[in-house]
Amino acid sequence: MSLEHVTVTGGGVLGSQIAYQSAFKGKAVIIYDINDEAIAQVKKRVNGLRDSYKNDIKATDGQFDAGLGRLSFTTDLASAVADADLVIEAVPERPSIKHGLYQNLAKMAPERTIFTSNSSTYVPSTYMEDTGRPDRFLNLHFANQVWKNNTAEIMGSPKTDPAIYQQVVQYAREIGMVPIELKKEQPGYVLNTLLIPLLDAGSYLWGQDIADPHTIDKTWMIGTGAPMGPFGIMDLVGLRTCYNITKEQQGDDPKAQPYLEKMKAMLDEGKLGRESGEGFYHYPNPEFADPAFLKA
Amino acid sequence: MSLEHVTVTGGGVLGSQIAYQSAFKGKAVIIYDINDEAIAQVKKRVNGLRDSYKNDIKATDGQFDAGLGRLSFTTDLASAVADADLVIEAVPERPSIKHGLYQNLAKMAPERTIFTSNSSTYVPSTYMEDTGRPDRFLNLHFANQVWKNNTAEIMGSPKTDPAIYQQVVQYAREIGMVPIELKKEQPGYVLNTLLIPLLDAGSYLWGQDIADPHTIDKTWMIGTGAPMGPFGIMDLVGLRTCYNITKEQQGDDPKAQPYLEKMKAMLDEGKLGRESGEGFYHYPNPEFADPAFLKA
Repeated sequence: MSLEHVTVTGGGVLGSQIAYQSAFKGKAVIIYDINDEAIAQVKKRVNGLRDSYKNDIKATDGQFDAGLGRLSFTTDLASAVADADLVIEAVPERPSIKHGLYQNLAKMAPERTIFTSNSSTYVPSTYMEDTGRPDRFLNLHFANQVWKNNTAEIMGSPKTDPAIYQQVVQYAREIGMVPIELKKEQPGYVLNTLLIPLLDAGSYLWGQDIADPHTIDKTWMIGTGAPMGPFGIMDLVGLRTCYNITKEQQGDDPKAQPYLEKMKAMLDEGKLGRESGEGFYHYPNPEFADPAFLKA
Repeated sequence: MSLEHVTVTGGGVLGSQIAYQSAFKGKAVIIYDINDEAIAQVKKRVNGLRDSYKNDIKATDGQFDAGLGRLSFTTDLASAVADADLVIEAVPERPSIKHGLYQNLAKMAPERTIFTSNSSTYVPSTYMEDTGRPDRFLNLHFANQVWKNNTAEIMGSPKTDPAIYQQVVQYAREIGMVPIELKKEQPGYVLNTLLIPLLDAGSYLWGQDIADPHTIDKTWMIGTGAPMGPFGIMDLVGLRTCYNITKEQQGDDPKAQPYLEKMKAMLDEGKLGRESGEGFYHYPNPEFADPAFLKA
């Protein structure tokens, strides 16, 4: 059964992108958020996607407007999910908020409704019992700029029904994603499980003064043909996020301290990465994107 | 002072490439190897580079021949290094061979001669005292297919003279390499320090049955824009080498066993990676190089 009526709970950066992408691909989508101010922000975010769709995937204004026409907004959770085939949860990564939301959804949504979480941090078994339907609950995780970074990582709990899992795989395909099927729960999914050790290794080399960030990135780019190295990726992720992740995961490890101190100094100088115009590189034309970078 | 007279000790796969690349770029190069049979193999390897230089970097036959004209071969170590500005050691990674070679070179080479090691495994402090000139000894590490994978990682010991280090950086530039300057000793240099954790993370995901190799690579390629993922890289490195490295570094770690067992099964089936025509992909046209690979 194809999933056509979709509710996205939480219209933050990712929630608004997931909702709009689904509507753009023909789904009937409702975005739920907590109050009118929040909804006003969500509408602004959604309308702000127009240029990206036009520039990045060559959508016409007519196509973009048709997507908007399939999207509605509400602050009433019960009506938001009354006819939902699929709920995609994209609220903040705070357990109290998520537990409460799932417990409410359990009561309000029809029995047939499938619940998915976009959580980056939590595996589905964390919340499955709150949903009252662990067999119909799994994670469906998107990357920022979903219209072009179009992977959707799909991860069930031990209780997820394989047929439900496959319905969500199919949904991901229908909205233009490449489904990445995980067979077991894994914190970080596939992408971050690969990416974080690479970033940690780069951080170590810089932290210990073994090589500087540009040298490290250049080595990676020449050695593997990648379009950017670990420090270019960190600029893209945002240095505050990188700092916080390392602080949380390795804050007690003496080996991580030199890196954390160097990052802290950059944050204090307002170097936050791509978003602030400067991090390990200068934007919008970072040094690593100049072909000369790889030649000397 | 520019380094013009160069001796490469050991004409294996890398030694012959390093020697020829140096000659191709104008240096007067002598390759030393242990006996006439070895030298015959070295000559075969060097002559076998012609097609690669023509195809990969558009060298003419005339240019290739001029390089050959600057290259000579000997089994006599004393005469090989009698006039050397630079010795590049590229013998097998066996400590007894390396210690003995450096002790001989210490006696035979002029005082001015700089010694470098292409060792992948050993940092320069391991052998510096054998050389009788620790201030003139450092590692200069090349990648396979030096004419196109043109990084040269440069790593001194705590005793290396910074001026000598810079002479070697300059030499790397003169022979067409991008010098990667390490400020301290680091096993694995920059490239392998970054690469091995990525390959380990991929191996873990596959070993634990969390995702399959093609899914993992696809996620990495879409998520980072890289031209191949960890399993594509392993095919290129060779599965036997990957297996041996993990076995040596993590052979006792229970978490690594499922991966090691799966790799062993592939090796037993003759799937060695790109060199055997099959590994995680089929060659010469691997599945990941098909644009459709990233779209479904």
